[in-house]
Amino acid sequence: MVDVAASAGRWAEEPIRKNRTADATVTITRGGVPLANRPVTVAQKSHAFLFGSTGFQFLRSGTESGGLRLTNISADRTDEQAKLARLEEEWFTLFNFVTLPFYWGNFEPVRGKPDTQRLLAGAQWFHDRGIPIKGHPLLWHTVQPDWLLDLTTDQVYEEERKRILREVGGFKHLIHTWDAINEAVIMPVFDRKENGITRLCRAKGRIATIKLAFETAREADPSAFLLLNDFDMSTAFECLIEGVLAAGIKVDALGLQSHMHQGYWGEEKTLDVLERFSRYGLPIHFTESTIMSGHLMPPEYIDLNDYQVTDWPTTEVGEARQAEEIVRHYKTLLSHPAVKAMTYWDIADDGWLHAPSGLVRADYTPKPSFEAMASLIKGSWWLAPTEMVTDDAGRIRFNGWLGEYEVTADGASAGFGLREAGKASEEVAIPR
Amino acid sequence: MVDVAASAGRWAEEPIRKNRTADATVTITRGGVPLANRPVTVAQKSHAFLFGSTGFQFLRSGTESGGLRLTNISADRTDEQAKLARLEEEWFTLFNFVTLPFYWGNFEPVRGKPDTQRLLAGAQWFHDRGIPIKGHPLLWHTVQPDWLLDLTTDQVYEEERKRILREVGGFKHLIHTWDAINEAVIMPVFDRKENGITRLCRAKGRIATIKLAFETAREADPSAFLLLNDFDMSTAFECLIEGVLAAGIKVDALGLQSHMHQGYWGEEKTLDVLERFSRYGLPIHFTESTIMSGHLMPPEYIDLNDYQVTDWPTTEVGEARQAEEIVRHYKTLLSHPAVKAMTYWDIADDGWLHAPSGLVRADYTPKPSFEAMASLIKGSWWLAPTEMVTDDAGRIRFNGWLGEYEVTADGASAGFGLREAGKASEEVAIPR
Repeated sequence: MVDVAASAGRWAEEPIRKNRTADATVTITRGGVPLANRPVTVAQKSHAFLFGSTGFQFLRSGTESGGLRLTNISADRTDEQAKLARLEEEWFTLFNFVTLPFYWGNFEPVRGKPDTQRLLAGAQWFHDRGIPIKGHPLLWHTVQPDWLLDLTTDQVYEEERKRILREVGGFKHLIHTWDAINEAVIMPVFDRKENGITRLCRAKGRIATIKLAFETAREADPSAFLLLNDFDMSTAFECLIEGVLAAGIKVDALGLQSHMHQGYWGEEKTLDVLERFSRYGLPIHFTESTIMSGHLMPPEYIDLNDYQVTDWPTTEVGEARQAEEIVRHYKTLLSHPAVKAMTYWDIADDGWLHAPSGLVRADYTPKPSFEAMASLIKGSWWLAPTEMVTDDAGRIRFNGWLGEYEVTADGASAGFGLREAGKASEEVAIPR
Repeated sequence: MVDVAASAGRWAEEPIRKNRTADATVTITRGGVPLANRPVTVAQKSHAFLFGSTGFQFLRSGTESGGLRLTNISADRTDEQAKLARLEEEWFTLFNFVTLPFYWGNFEPVRGKPDTQRLLAGAQWFHDRGIPIKGHPLLWHTVQPDWLLDLTTDQVYEEERKRILREVGGFKHLIHTWDAINEAVIMPVFDRKENGITRLCRAKGRIATIKLAFETAREADPSAFLLLNDFDMSTAFECLIEGVLAAGIKVDALGLQSHMHQGYWGEEKTLDVLERFSRYGLPIHFTESTIMSGHLMPPEYIDLNDYQVTDWPTTEVGEARQAEEIVRHYKTLLSHPAVKAMTYWDIADDGWLHAPSGLVRADYTPKPSFEAMASLIKGSWWLAPTEMVTDDAGRIRFNGWLGEYEVTADGASAGFGLREAGKASEEVAIPR
């Protein structure tokens, strides 16, 4: 069997190591004295890079009662709960960053009755497990509440503003990262479905609409980390970004979608996109990546939502190809220093468009892509607990992936972080 | 024979009349007294709409000596001069607005030796004939002087600034309208030929580069009328426009190119473009329109300049099609109130790309498109000298195309203008 994780995208190894690891010198002390010539165990606890995915599967559906779907799982759990527990284990093997849904049309289908409690439960569940959360999206023209259609454009503006204040304010103890606005390039010229947000954006212009999203979110949570997210990788998005920056809107990161239902981009396109969008000096998040393990959507579909099938099977050949392409995609992204996050859009099959885009199948059995990514994220790109011996000055030296670490000596532990690529000097005091 | 001018684009007649004519009531007086019940002759002298074309043919080429090519045409003129005189007559039959070339790479191929005298002579010649002039373009990444390649980006910025001050300042007694910047959407990502302007735009950003062009031009001539001109009719240009406006740059008109070497756009696309770009409330100039009277360029060419042929013949079938399409194109543009100008890109064949895009052939004999446009611009859309009789109050009433008029009574004349569509009331005093 070919080791896909090792072989695919091998070219990227050197830039990945350069951009994602530190040559660490860690001085370990106890009681103010270097712990010289002693065996210690160093273990990576987390990645600095945000390996993200959606967490929609773990939320109770709108028709279920109670809080989170995983709440109250007990010894006599149902088959469905057992399946979900498997998914949970898989999810936490790979991911350290979650995207939760705040689509307004689903969140508040009836005006004044927002779905706050269900989302609070879901956000709390991830928060309790140490997973930073991104809310997606605060302002978008798709999945809109129908009741906006009856409002004037000024009323839509006010309702959107109130909604942003409500969500960002109401979740700020749990969520600091938001896709402030989604798909503003197409927003005012979107002609597939009448909606209040397209009308608003057409009347006010893109920049004013983006300003509404960003400034209102920041008003509710001054420490929020806000993304400008889009699927349009053409020069149109560059033009928009330049306008947004010229207008003085503070963008914390650019969100680039990469739904590859019609085929993997390949390294050349990905690197071109990275080169063009990194020139603004902003962090880049790949926010929505999908790669198929079945047939590809025919190229004539412009709007992916037009491809309506009830069955889109995953295949053995497709799964092998997907594993290779996913590895290449992650490696390409990690090779570029501007990329700070990569969110895989649905860990499991049969989500959006019924596409076979998951890393695990609809029954949650892992695909080769899952195994390959696990062998990177918790294998080649990870420092498992490793025994090292300090030198005369109490130092250990190693090359480590950026993230948080724990060092243990004589049964006592302390943490340290490697946060910048290159040379790192850290000092760790082990408690007595 | 089908009357193309009348039949093609017939749907547009009502909106054209609504947007381009006035129902005029003109009171004619002499010595303060209404000239009642008297025959007068009313004649249109000019169109308010700018029917433009390039005037490159009338400039002396770089290798010829003397001033303008038409200067010193005498009785014993050469065959070439006779041909050119024919072209001159054709040009002035249709057009009232000219675009003259200021491509930097041609204008100043050797640093410090600008082609000012030749262009001054050409501009003066059109100016003397009452034709407003547009200079094209002040800042563009194509047709660049090679000597920019040796300069630092900051030096390119300074040289571009000096050039704009020099051209706009040096021609301001003749030229007030400029394509301040050309094709800024693609400018920083243009990868066909290394050049200093792409480098500048990539380093400073599109908005800063646009600001350089507009603000420097306005510094040299505060009354200049400045266009933001592009060929990219996608939403990318909308994004750029919105950024430019948000940055507070004063744009006087949007310039939309429409080189149709690969086929006529059709009304639906043209109206969609007009609808999208008119929403900024700015005047629209169609700055560069071409329609073929021969075969079409194959659709796989993205950059029109890649289609290199030495012979691209005009054909009889092609000329009939071209006449119909040109009439439809002009009618579509005139049906929309935002369009204030339409520049046909080369009156004669064998210009750019050797394309058969002219209204007259390479030997300057008129094509059906020329005849059709003449029968509109100086026919259906024109008030030829017409006798009318004033009423008891000295008034005449007529529906007239927007523009300047002359009324003559008893051998004495006075002028008046119809400048706004709809109802118009004018008073004209005939000199004693």
